[in-house]
Amino acid sequence: MKFSASIDIMPLPALLDPQGKAVSSNMKNIGLAGIGNVRIGKHITLELEAANQAEAESQVKEACEKLLTNQIMEQFEFHVEALEAVA
Amino acid sequence: MKFSASIDIMPLPALLDPQGKAVSSNMKNIGLAGIGNVRIGKHITLELEAANQAEAESQVKEACEKLLTNQIMEQFEFHVEALEAVA
Repeated sequence: MKFSASIDIMPLPALLDPQGKAVSSNMKNIGLAGIGNVRIGKHITLELEAANQAEAESQVKEACEKLLTNQIMEQFEFHVEALEAVA
Repeated sequence: MKFSASIDIMPLPALLDPQGKAVSSNMKNIGLAGIGNVRIGKHITLELEAANQAEAESQVKEACEKLLTNQIMEQFEFHVEALEAVA
């Protein structure tokens, strides 16, 4: 079965996000002074083959932990959904 | 009223995503050969002050178009929600 996963990886809340801070302070230059507290992370989409939803979720979790996320500085959350109905 | 917005910015589907491709081909090295078609973009969260939901959405759209997204190469989608109930 084919699944699609959507992963959000963000800097940990306790850490400064200099990129987000730079964007926040530039918002007023384009006339959007009401926008603040910008934090910038990664959004990753992928497709995978797995027997069922639980296996798909465990594969995505493993990919996040081993390859996609630096867990010292980042946290992740993800959402997996089936692309096809069971045959 | 305070709103929080969550924005996903992804490379346009028609464009190659070399970073995603590199990650895809590394998945088999960590034993996750079933994962492919990885695409990597940005996930941005921010907070803003606006009179109502419609105004908040229009501000976020403007921020995406003017500052956050390179519309030649990227597309965005976002979701805005109220952080507090109306007083």
